[in-house]
This record gives sequence, structure tokens and C-alpha cells, in this order.
Amino acid sequence: MTDKSSRTTLLEDPQLRPFLPLLWVAWSDGDMEEDDLAALCARVEAMPWLRPAARIALAAWLDPSAPPSAEERAALIDAVERVSATLSPERRRDLVELGASLAEATGADDDVKRALAELEERVGVTRGAPMPVAERAGPDAPAFDVRALQALLDGDQSAVREEVRRFLAQPDVRAYGLPVDEYRIKVAGWLAELAKRGFGARAYPGVTSEEPDLGAFVATFESLAMGDLSLVVRYGVQFGLFGGSVYFLATDAQRREHLPKIATLETPGCFAMSEVGHGSDVANLETVATWQPDTRTFVIHTPGESARKDWIGGAAKHARTATVFAQLEAHGERHGVHAFLVPIRDANGAMCEGVRAGDTGHKMGLNGVDNGRLWFDNVAVPESALLARFARMDDVGRYESEIANPSRRFFTMLGTLVGGRVSVAAAGVTASKVALAIAVRYATARRPFGASDGLPLMSYPTHGRRLLPRLATTYVHSFAIDRLRRVFAEATRATGDVDTRELEAQAAALKVIATAHAVDTARACREACGGQGYLSVNRLPDLCADIEVFTTFEGDNTVLLQLVAKSLLAGFKRRFEGTGFAAVARHLAERAKVAVLEKNVVAARRTAPEHLRDRAFHLAALRYREEQLLSTSAARLRKRLAAKKPMEEAALEVQEHMVALARAHAERLALEWFDDAVATIEDDALRALLDEVGALHGIGALRADAGFYLSEGYFDATKESALRKESDRLIRELVPAARELVDAFGIPDACLAAPIAFMDPAHPTW
Amino acid sequence: MTDKSSRTTLLEDPQLRPFLPLLWVAWSDGDMEEDDLAALCARVEAMPWLRPAARIALAAWLDPSAPPSAEERAALIDAVERVSATLSPERRRDLVELGASLAEATGADDDVKRALAELEERVGVTRGAPMPVAERAGPDAPAFDVRALQALLDGDQSAVREEVRRFLAQPDVRAYGLPVDEYRIKVAGWLAELAKRGFGARAYPGVTSEEPDLGAFVATFESLAMGDLSLVVRYGVQFGLFGGSVYFLATDAQRREHLPKIATLETPGCFAMSEVGHGSDVANLETVATWQPDTRTFVIHTPGESARKDWIGGAAKHARTATVFAQLEAHGERHGVHAFLVPIRDANGAMCEGVRAGDTGHKMGLNGVDNGRLWFDNVAVPESALLARFARMDDVGRYESEIANPSRRFFTMLGTLVGGRVSVAAAGVTASKVALAIAVRYATARRPFGASDGLPLMSYPTHGRRLLPRLATTYVHSFAIDRLRRVFAEATRATGDVDTRELEAQAAALKVIATAHAVDTARACREACGGQGYLSVNRLPDLCADIEVFTTFEGDNTVLLQLVAKSLLAGFKRRFEGTGFAAVARHLAERAKVAVLEKNVVAARRTAPEHLRDRAFHLAALRYREEQLLSTSAARLRKRLAAKKPMEEAALEVQEHMVALARAHAERLALEWFDDAVATIEDDALRALLDEVGALHGIGALRADAGFYLSEGYFDATKESALRKESDRLIRELVPAARELVDAFGIPDACLAAPIAFMDPAHPTW
Repeated sequence: MTDKSSRTTLLEDPQLRPFLPLLWVAWSDGDMEEDDLAALCARVEAMPWLRPAARIALAAWLDPSAPPSAEERAALIDAVERVSATLSPERRRDLVELGASLAEATGADDDVKRALAELEERVGVTRGAPMPVAERAGPDAPAFDVRALQALLDGDQSAVREEVRRFLAQPDVRAYGLPVDEYRIKVAGWLAELAKRGFGARAYPGVTSEEPDLGAFVATFESLAMGDLSLVVRYGVQFGLFGGSVYFLATDAQRREHLPKIATLETPGCFAMSEVGHGSDVANLETVATWQPDTRTFVIHTPGESARKDWIGGAAKHARTATVFAQLEAHGERHGVHAFLVPIRDANGAMCEGVRAGDTGHKMGLNGVDNGRLWFDNVAVPESALLARFARMDDVGRYESEIANPSRRFFTMLGTLVGGRVSVAAAGVTASKVALAIAVRYATARRPFGASDGLPLMSYPTHGRRLLPRLATTYVHSFAIDRLRRVFAEATRATGDVDTRELEAQAAALKVIATAHAVDTARACREACGGQGYLSVNRLPDLCADIEVFTTFEGDNTVLLQLVAKSLLAGFKRRFEGTGFAAVARHLAERAKVAVLEKNVVAARRTAPEHLRDRAFHLAALRYREEQLLSTSAARLRKRLAAKKPMEEAALEVQEHMVALARAHAERLALEWFDDAVATIEDDALRALLDEVGALHGIGALRADAGFYLSEGYFDATKESALRKESDRLIRELVPAARELVDAFGIPDACLAAPIAFMDPAHPTW
Repeated sequence: MTDKSSRTTLLEDPQLRPFLPLLWVAWSDGDMEEDDLAALCARVEAMPWLRPAARIALAAWLDPSAPPSAEERAALIDAVERVSATLSPERRRDLVELGASLAEATGADDDVKRALAELEERVGVTRGAPMPVAERAGPDAPAFDVRALQALLDGDQSAVREEVRRFLAQPDVRAYGLPVDEYRIKVAGWLAELAKRGFGARAYPGVTSEEPDLGAFVATFESLAMGDLSLVVRYGVQFGLFGGSVYFLATDAQRREHLPKIATLETPGCFAMSEVGHGSDVANLETVATWQPDTRTFVIHTPGESARKDWIGGAAKHARTATVFAQLEAHGERHGVHAFLVPIRDANGAMCEGVRAGDTGHKMGLNGVDNGRLWFDNVAVPESALLARFARMDDVGRYESEIANPSRRFFTMLGTLVGGRVSVAAAGVTASKVALAIAVRYATARRPFGASDGLPLMSYPTHGRRLLPRLATTYVHSFAIDRLRRVFAEATRATGDVDTRELEAQAAALKVIATAHAVDTARACREACGGQGYLSVNRLPDLCADIEVFTTFEGDNTVLLQLVAKSLLAGFKRRFEGTGFAAVARHLAERAKVAVLEKNVVAARRTAPEHLRDRAFHLAALRYREEQLLSTSAARLRKRLAAKKPMEEAALEVQEHMVALARAHAERLALEWFDDAVATIEDDALRALLDEVGALHGIGALRADAGFYLSEGYFDATKESALRKESDRLIRELVPAARELVDAFGIPDACLAAPIAFMDPAHPTW
């Protein structure tokens, strides 16, 4: 405080007056670097006519470690205005003149003018400015082993990934612009080829394969996303959703009966869960399976239009069997949603009696998937249609289940399907990688305006800012989801079963940010390729259109975020319930500690590069935000409930806050898991590289929510500006490595097929 | 200052201690409303045991008009921590207990506890929180005349718009999912129909029509964008770009010869400007037109692959004549880029000798437009092929032009083409309107989870936040671009000519924000319709894919922003040059005034609703940002030049800053023009409605750049939070009018064709 007020007092020194406008302009522009200020100080040193007091005053105002506060800036403006208001208009010339006029004849007018002119030039203010456009040379690429980086990314599934790469390297596994029917047939052909190569069998460890767990299956799905995304979805529907429903919900006998045929595609199927009226609300779907004790059959029925099964991949054309999710009703009592294997087409593709199918129609993307609708008109199926691992009809025809609580039963059944979310998250990361590989390869080869002697697009700052932060985030997600896949595989190892609520929440959180990032990245890459990105031959248009719906698959992202938020709030509640609210004090103390340690003025203004790049700093900031959003969400809800608002209304009002909380949680989790992964890397060059990549991502995450951190006082404007500059510095450092960073994704040339990725002069599209 | 320190001193009052944790939690959550604070104050009043000093202290801390500063919050935390550190762990219970413990036995323990419990409930802190999902009833729609609003939006071109609506209302003017060839033929048929109806003739006032100016033509283009965007582009290429090149660059005789055939489509043409190596750099394109004095012909030649004409709409298939832009070379001397009418196909569609065409190929969208490539192999055309308004060959075969300066000549010729930018901007706004009409109609009818008794999607806050701010921005853009169209029409009225640099910059600025907004809005609307938005039948997929490239048409948005920034910087420079730098002082004084008037603590914290909604406040803030970015951009450039960096490098480093400046300028311009338009509205209800719409947009613009305003100290965290709440309030007020606001766009049902826009129960897609 003394320091500040003394600085403000210094403004009254007459010898300082000429410098006031300059000081104010210098500080009001966020572009001053430490060396600029140091240079200004040095020039001040070289002004012999300055009295010591004025010299000290100037040095105090130019101290890079003590940027003026808002109050001090106001005092500065005030001083400028107050003094300049006393001058006649003709004495107000340019900045130098104004400064000199402000000097009030100190007898050193010429010295002052010369000094001001020098300083003015350094600050770079006024006198108009010129026009741009060009490029900057980058340093050489840093030395690191691209193969070692690829090995790191491939992780424990490199053999599987290589197998997928070989499949995708076939030149005909590629299509665009085809009529819907042709495209569907093509994709069906590729799927058959996958089954023939045993890619389906690996989905059922212990039944059709010797795999120890589902790690290989998820890695296959993930790696297939380097190619056609319609194929990825059909692969996932047949082996993951349809086959997975049998694998997880059927008895051993049922598994042995059905899975071998599913793995070979002898039984092509679909997964009939969603209904048009109940997209995200599975518990309340309306299709009924009524038990007929006399015949020991179930009658599957669609009671109304809102119960129509919709968006079912495979239902329009190719599927012959459907896993139908329906309310099991026996003896007039409902036991909740259960899964039934229902034949829908015969071997010739004709519809089975009572089953009606419709085509969902032409879509924005993924037209290689035959999404369809299904209606059931009292279709009788044998007792054995019920996938009976968790429930069955006993000998006398009564419903029987080990899990007495219907809600717990429902969540147990659904929980087994978490693999879908893990897989979709992983495929999202792969899609980001493909888009970036195409855009970065183009940007490192293409020289704007056809000038072959110019520098490549990639050297343009706007281009670097568009691609590199997204590349950094893709790396962070890739490592985080590699861990998610391993956690999932681990969970399926011993029992072939999954039973972790925590995993479900983690999968939901990471699925949301990985798929949202993929959509954003695909669009940004398309835009970064300009008109070339608009051509289907360059893959990006279909990638954009296909990936969009990944944010809806396996749980709509907004709905998933609400689930994540609920689970976090439940945990928060437990924290305060468990110990009779004793934890409140601890919580308060913790928040106070954070406020003292992280939010104090010194921390909020720390701008040393090693601090700005420090992952511990990024993680602390992300944790702070999550914790802050968690407690304020809880408070907002409770306040509304205390005011007697109905729960639904209260929750709706707080919805945006809860969604922000869940997103903050997901971002923290991803960076934390990335951090863990990097810590184990032994190769110094790779670890250093990934530290830079992680720093670019971390700074980006903080800057994306600068409004939050600024308004929380977690950092101030000076630090925000330092973060921006540090981000630019990191981009400049990483540009020379950009090509290697995408090469390490190991995407086969055939998948990049985009001519712009190769800049082949013989190809007429560039 | 005294006030603050006294508040901090109050913290030492022992009777206040129990309230410290509560006060801190209350203020650290941004969710306190004035009435919450008033209620807390009232409860404090009702505590007889409080001493007057403590009562005053509490009231001071609960004053809604004086939220604690960062320092005061720190002091508060500090006090909590300091006092609680002295307590034993078992005395630290929940917030109430902690407060009571902090009270140090004031003899009123029970009173304190009861008071704290009440206050705690009001603040809503701790004790866990519950789970959501549901809806809120909205008030009735406000009374305003939808037809009057439509008339306002239609402006002075309502007759033309009605004519276009009648054309588009034909059920067969609609397509999706067609193979490229079929689609192109369909669009060609629609275009012929437009020509037959005289929609082409209106492009040439004074030659083929009696229109006073180009207003009707731009309005036609704009309104056609309610329908198929491929048709819009083909209409623009044939009558705007191809015909426009003749209209603006040809002699009267050439106009009379060619335009009647162009208007009827007897001469289908294309506009061959862009080259693969020179997308945005027209001045340096490479195609050459060499003058042959002997034969008085020009020889058009493509010297290399980078000179290939690319992306030329119509070139792949339908065009028979091309306006080719080429470097005119005569007697070994180059005279810059000129336009030539070159036959490329004969009446049977066979290529003319020496001309080669290629197909640009399948694209992300706009596949109804046959974009193609053109190569010319020494193609001789007669002298009359040169569009000779500004330059020609004289009798003895020498080059002749009224405009001696080649650069001025080039910009004069290009300047005449500004109509393209105006039209594309206008079409962008229409595309936003269509997307919003579909999404809002769906959202007002669709009830989530199939519950017919539930509230419509539109009542969900997240949904309102997604659609309504974009709707508000669309209104602002619509009025701004209506004015742009009128300015353009005015400029073409007297002379059939355009010569205003200012108009070019305005058109560029508004084109950028209107098309960028359209892309964003189409995507957001598609997402807001969930899976339904992914179906092609609902129009949004094609709208998204088609509109994307509008950001590239008629000048890539990033390039245009740089042009705008350059023009602003040149103006800035002139401001300081013109008067011998005298204006610097004025500039400084102005900035100081702004800082004093707008950036002071009181203004930065003003949160009264009438202030937050005040367009004058929004405009002042946008002007402040523009001015700030302008002077800092200039300073950054000059600083780099002073440090002897090459101009190109300096400009590249400052590129992001310049782009931000241009965007800020465009946003300010749009809101200013909207403001002017609203000021002239006589209908009170409509003016009030548009004031609300404008307020929602204005607040959105400030919030979107909250980081800037926070770090500038233009507003503080409290005001930012107040803006968020005011925005939510406006959304709630406007939700009931959402349907009418999109109905006023007057989009024919046939254009909305999307089944989701009608929620037709008979239609199987919903």
C-alpha cells in the first residue's frame, strides 16, 4: 500500500510530468514486454539532467514486476488530464510535444524532447502505422524420435493397431459422394471383411477369443476411426452394441449359442434401445414385452408412435436380429426394462411377421449406416429371447432376479454397456488426429499465393494459433483416453463384467470433451484448408459431417454432463453428511487456503515463463475452478429449494452452472491423467516435448475461461496477457515439430487419401 | 476509500464474527440478487440482541450497491481464517456451528445460532444438493403486430420479396440427397425459370429493366436465400458476377449487345477470376491476354498450373462464355488485370478450341453448382472481347485508359464489384433466419421425453440461451444490412456506378460478421434440433454445409478483416498526420475522458437493469473497444518497425490484433445502424420489442468479450455477473415472442419444408 501510494505521489514531481502521457499509453497497451521496460529504464538512466527523485519515480513506474493497479492507472490518467487541461490547444501537439508542454519549462526542454522522442519510438505509439502480409522463418525441428512417440501413443495395443492400419491401407476402403444405397452396400462389404479377419471375434473374450479383456476391441474401434466413420459405427453396432448386449446381459449358454454367429456376421443385428419419445430416458421407454405363462413366450409390442424404435443402426436394411429393450410385464406387474433377442428379418431380408421397419432417411453424414425405425405388432418370441443373466422366468412362470431393487437392476444392466462410451470417446480422439494430420500436412507444404519461394502456411501466426492448440489438446485427450481404455479393460478382465460407478462417470466426462473437441477440431481443420477443405476428395467435409453425431451417440453430451454434475453433487453432499457436517469447516478452510495461496496478489500476477508453463499451476487452476463451481452449484440449488421452488425448476435454473461444473471436472480429469502418463516417460526428449504440448493445452484451458479467472481474481490482466504471449511462444516453438507430431499418429497414407495432405503436384486438385 | 477501510475495520467487531463465514460464502458466490441481500438485511434488523455497531457493520457488508472489492474479500477470508485457526477441530461444525464458535460466548448463543440458521438457508449454502430436470411456465406472448414487423424487415423491397416468396412456394423448388448430376440439372431448371420471370433482367437497370437502381436485384438475391442455396449462388454467378462484370466494366455498346442475352440466360456464363495460386490476390493473377496488333486480337493463355482458373461456378458444365480476368500485355508492356469475354463452349456444350475445363468435384455443400476449372491454351479473341469501359486499344493499337495510375485503375474496376459482397452479406442474414425459423418452430412445439403434457423445449433455459441471443443478433444484422443495401442502391442510382471506398469497407465488415454469424447460427440450430437436426429432410444439414463457404465467397473473411483493419489504420494515421500530429492530444484527451467517464469504479459497477439494457451503454462499450484496439494495433506495428523488423514480419505478429480490431469495428457499425433504424420506428410496441432484442444482442456482444472488458477495468466481476443475469431475464421475456419473431421473417412454408418445423403428427419423422 505504501509502495502504491508513494508511486501515486511521484506523479506530482514536475520533472516527471513530460513522461506522464507516455507512461499511461505504455501501460494501457498490453504489449509491453520485460525487455521493453528494461530498455526504457536504461534510457532513463542515460538522462543526466533528471533529478534523483524523478529518476526513482520513473523507475518505479517502469518496474515490470509491479504493473500499475487499476487505481494507479486511474491516478495516472487523472494527472494527464488535469495537467493537460491547463494547456492552450496549440501547445498540445503530438505525444512528444504534449509531454514537453507538460514539462513547465524545467530549463532542459531540448533534452526532454529528445528523450521523449526516443522513448516514444520504443513504446511505438502514434505516427500512423503500415500494412502487412507475409511470413516468418521458423527454427529447425527439435530432435525427438517420431517412432518412439508413436509407440507411446499406440500404448499396449500396438499390434492390434498395426492390424487395423493394414486393413485401412487397402485403397478401396474409401468412399465419398456415393448415393446412399451404394454407400451402404460398400460399407457392408468392408464390415464382412472385418469379420472375416477376426475383428469381430475379439469383442467376446472367453467366448470367441483368447483376448484377456476388451482392450483389443476398444483399440480396434478406436483405430478404425482413422478410416470411414460409417464403417466404425457399423462395426460398433454389430460387435459392440448388439453383440455386447448378448455378451453382458445373456447367460453363458446364450452367449455360447449366439456370439460365434454374431462375431462372424452370420447373424447381423441391431441394438433397438432408443425410442422416438425417449432418446435419453431409457428407463421410461414404452415398448412392452408381456409374459404369456401358458405358452412361455413374450409378446413384444409397440403401444404407440412415441414408442417407435428410432435411429437404430442397421434396422433399415441389414439387420436380421434386434436386441429389443422393452418393459417386462408378467402377471400384470412391470419389472422394468429388459433386453430380448427378436428376429426381424429372415435370411432373404424379408420382414418377419408383425415387425415393420422404416428408413430414417438421408442424413447429414454417416450415410453408410442404414439407420431405421422399428415397430412391433404383438410379436411373440420364445422365453429364450430374454437375455437372462440378471433376470429370468422361473419354472412356474414367475419373474425372478438376484437384484431385488428394480432401479439397481436397471442400472446394473445399463452399466455393463459403458464400453460404448469408452469406445466413442476413443474414436473421437482418432477423428481429431485425422483432421489435424490432413490440415497440418497441408499447412506445412502449401505456400500461400502460389509463391513457391514463400514460407508455408504453417508459419503464419493465425494458422499456428488455429491448429497447434487443438493438436495439443488432442495429445492430452489421447493419453487420458488411453488410460480410460485400460481402466475399462482391467474392469472387464476378471469377470468379463464391469461394475464401477466411477468408471461410468469418468467415461461420460471424457466422452463429452473428446467428441466435442473432435467436432471443433474437424471444423477448424476444414476451415484452415480454405477452399480445399470444402472438397470432398480431401476428406474433411465428410469427417465434419460424420463426427457431429458422435456428440449424441451413447448419450447426448448435454445429458451426460448433467449426469456427471449430479454424481459430483452427490459426492459433495456425502462429503458434508458423512461427518455430521464437520467437513464444512475443513472445506471453508481449504477454500480460504486456496484463496490465500493461489489467489493472492503475488500469485495472480506471477508471469515468469516457467510458472506459466508449469502443469502444476494449470492443474491447481483447474481444480480451483471445479471446486468453486461445485460449491456454488450446490449453494444455488439449495438456495432455490429453501425458497420453496420445486426441485425441477430449481435444477433448470442452475442447469448452465451444473453443465459448466461437469465440463470443468472433465477438463481437470483429462489433464491430471495426461500428467500421470507424462510422469512415467523415460525418454527425456519426448517428455520435454510433451511438457510443451501439455503447457500449450493448459494455458489454452485457462485462457478459454479467462473471464472466470479474472473475475475470481485468480489472475489479473497482466497475467492474462502474459499467458497469451507464452502461448504464442509455445506455438512458435512447436511449429517446426508440427509435422512430426501428426506423423506420430501413425495414420496410413491411404486414410489421409486427401490429395492436399500430400501436395502431389501431379494431382489436379491443388 | 474511507468507506472501504471502515468496512474492513468492522470485521474486528466480536458480535460480527459469527457472520464472517456466511458473509464470505455469500459474496464469493456470484448468485446474490438485490432482494436476497435485502432479505438478509431485514433479518438482521430483526435481531434485537445485536449492538448498533454490529448492526451497522452487517448492513454495510450487505449493501447491494457496494459489493466488496478484491481487497475487502481478501480481508474477509483473512479474518475467517485467523479466527477459526484458534478454534479446536471439534468446535468447527457446519457453517452455523462455525459461526457460533466464532462468536466467543457473547451470551446470546441461541439467538446467534437461530439467526445464522435462518441466514444460511437464505444464502443457500452447504447441506448437499439435489438433482434436476424439468420446465418453467412462460408469460404470455407480448402484443405486437407480426405483419407490421415483417413489413419493417421487408423494407422498401417488399414487392420484390413477395415475388420471390411466390416462386419459392412452389413445392418442387426443393432438393436434397440427389446425385450431383441430377442436382445440377434441377438447379439449372430453376435458374431458367427465374430468368423467364424476369428476375435476371432486374440486374441491369437502364439496360434491361426500368428499376431505378440495384436495390431490387440485391433484395431478390437476399430473398432467394430462403430456399436452395445452390440456386442462390447460380443466380448470383449468372446475373451478378458474370452479368455484373459486363454491366460495370463494359462500354454502353457492349452492354446493349450482351446484357439482354445474359438476362434471359441465352448466354449462360461464368466469372473466371480466381486462380488456384491466387485466391485472394487478384492483382497478381497469372493468366495473360497478349495484344496482337496485326490481327487486333488478344491471346488468352494460362502460363502454368498455378494460373489455372479454379472454383469457377458454372465452368464445369453450364457456362458458354466466361469473363476472364487476365494481365493485359501490349507491346511487351503489362497494364494490369482486365476483363475479357471469352467463349468457352459452343451451343451444344462442346468446348471451344484451346479451352479446357475440369470439374472441381464433389463438395461439402452447394453441389447444385457446377464449380470447375479452366485452362486457356493461346486462345485468340477479337478486340471486342475486352470489356472496355475503363481501358481500350486505340486506333493505332496502343493501350489507352482515362485512369493513368495502374493501381487506381485496378481498384476502380474491382470496386465496381462491391455488389457481390453486399449480396452475400444479405444472403447470410437470410440463411440465419431460415435456420432459426426451423429451430424455433421445432422448439416451441416439441415437448421433451415425449411427454405431451410437459413444457416445450423452448422453455428450457439452455435452449433459450442457445437460440434467442442468435435470433437477436440476426435482427441487428438484418437492419444493418438493409441499410447497407440501400446505401449501395443509392450509389448505383445516378450513374449505374459505384465509387465509394467507404462503402467497400462497410460491405466487407458486415459481410464478415453476417456470414460468420450465419455459419454459427446454422450449426447451433442444427444442434438444438438434436437427432432431427441431423436428418436431411429437415433442411439444417444442407444449410450448414452450404453456408460454410459463404465465409470464403467474395473475399475470404480473414482477408477481408485485414483489409478493413488496414483501412482503419490508414484513417488513424491520417487523423494524426493531417493536422501535424495536433490530434494526438485530442486523442489522448478523448481516451482519458472515456477512462474517466466510463472506466471509473462507479460505472464499472453500475448494475441497474435500465443501464444494463441501455443501447447507449452497449455502443459506448463497443466504441471504446474499437478505439482501444485501433490505437494499440497502431502502436504495436510502429514499435516493431522502430525495432527494425521488416514490415511483413511486424504485420504478421500483429495480425491477430488487427483482425480483432476489424471485427470490433464491424460489430460497432452493425449496432449503430440498428440503433439508427430503431430510432425511426413509430409503432411503440415494435420499438419496445426491438429495444429488448437489441439489448439481448448488445449484452451478448459485451459478454462475448468479457475478458477484454474485465482486464481493461471497463467493468468488474459484479457487473459481468449482472450482465449474465440481465441476459437471462431478457431471454425469459422474449421466449414467449420467439415464434412471432421468426414468423416475421416471412419465410414461406414450402421453404421451411422441414417436417420438424411443423410437427405434423402424420409425418413419421418426429
